[in-house]
Amino acid sequence: MSLNGLNILLVNDDGVTAPGILCAARFLSRGHNVVISAPESEQSSVGHGITLRLPLWTRKLDISEPFEMYAVSGTPADCVKIGLDVIYKEKGMIPDLIISGINRGENLGTDVIYSGTVSGALEGAIAGVPSIAISVADFKSPIYETAALFLLDFLNEFDVKSIPEFTALNINVPSLPYNEINGWKVTRQSKRRYEDYFEKRVDPTGREYYWMLGDVIEDDPDPLADYKALSERYISVTPISIFMTNEEFLSQLPPVYRCGGL
Amino acid sequence: MSLNGLNILLVNDDGVTAPGILCAARFLSRGHNVVISAPESEQSSVGHGITLRLPLWTRKLDISEPFEMYAVSGTPADCVKIGLDVIYKEKGMIPDLIISGINRGENLGTDVIYSGTVSGALEGAIAGVPSIAISVADFKSPIYETAALFLLDFLNEFDVKSIPEFTALNINVPSLPYNEINGWKVTRQSKRRYEDYFEKRVDPTGREYYWMLGDVIEDDPDPLADYKALSERYISVTPISIFMTNEEFLSQLPPVYRCGGL
Repeated sequence: MSLNGLNILLVNDDGVTAPGILCAARFLSRGHNVVISAPESEQSSVGHGITLRLPLWTRKLDISEPFEMYAVSGTPADCVKIGLDVIYKEKGMIPDLIISGINRGENLGTDVIYSGTVSGALEGAIAGVPSIAISVADFKSPIYETAALFLLDFLNEFDVKSIPEFTALNINVPSLPYNEINGWKVTRQSKRRYEDYFEKRVDPTGREYYWMLGDVIEDDPDPLADYKALSERYISVTPISIFMTNEEFLSQLPPVYRCGGL
Repeated sequence: MSLNGLNILLVNDDGVTAPGILCAARFLSRGHNVVISAPESEQSSVGHGITLRLPLWTRKLDISEPFEMYAVSGTPADCVKIGLDVIYKEKGMIPDLIISGINRGENLGTDVIYSGTVSGALEGAIAGVPSIAISVADFKSPIYETAALFLLDFLNEFDVKSIPEFTALNINVPSLPYNEINGWKVTRQSKRRYEDYFEKRVDPTGREYYWMLGDVIEDDPDPLADYKALSERYISVTPISIFMTNEEFLSQLPPVYRCGGL
């Protein structure tokens, strides 16, 4: 237990036993007080789901680590709610910071909309706690240590209390050794997206089914596009808001209509 | 089959047999060509999930209705992908419009982040098709007919091709008879949110579990706040973008950092 460190609630969507969250917890515990509240099972691509009509089970795991660890039968957003409203509440505390990750695979462009990792951080932002989502841009053999070391440095140099309300940071780290990283850049969520297609197959009982495949499209002209930082060996830090109103289009529309039938 | 009507892909998150989607399909079929692609089972609060590591089953239902109907073993976003990349692709067409709903219960303020209904429309916006999410603001006894009639009027009077790329409309309709509605207003996604708390119980085997409960907080000073339109008996129409960057905070941050260890 560090007296000077931050109290950090750590969640993820890859599940409580995923190497990314354990790597983050071990590095962060060098200077901070970490509590893990994470899904029992993998929740990737659940988006920002919450469990409304089922109860949530929570159990504390008996582990020999310098942090506490709870498994929750829900989504990353559920884990944030249980973390804040049950685990930290019983301690009589509000954490200083919520970190969601370290995710296996990047969350760039339209990934932000689908990402369970990002949803954990947005849930924290809704609850009024400074929140960070962090991902390593490699699904096959991610180097989590670089992202974990970066988190330690980042928390030394950046005051997370400066993050505005209803806003979280979406951080993506190249899967490279730490000494090959050039630094970090503030970026914008890009138009990076997928062109989907489906491969049709027939199951042993004769039913047709589909596997989703997709090609990534990286054609955003914006020099601040999130994915461009990574290709330049920078860590990408994007401030994202829970407010999605298209203000420009809103301002072009007359405020009140009466319809034909009204 | 209407020659002058729009070709509409209709999805939802309450499932293919939900009264809201059937009501929408029957009313829209009066002037448009409707194809339903909807989840086999209820998907409420799945957020913007997609099914990446499981195959998707799709089957055409044999129904006596003036529209086609497909059940998909996935989320609302999956149903949009299957609708575009399998069902309409086999027709050699792209639909003119995607409608997600009619949802049972409102999607206002922070609901937008959690909503499977909204995710269906955002998935359509990512794919480049004009897209609308529509919800009735009553979970217990929603009057779907008002929302369905409004859709017909709205499509007569509003050119959906004017919706900018990567943007969808999030529509919320009061659960009132149509003649008691004052019209529709263009609104902004509000700070409406929930204060969560958990009720702890013990299951028959002695394990503790939690039910999530919450009180709604409606304290947004914005006169354009989405929920305020409904309390004035207006339909709320919010243009929402998939881009969540907090531009104001981004502009305050220096663009490039080098960290201690970097």
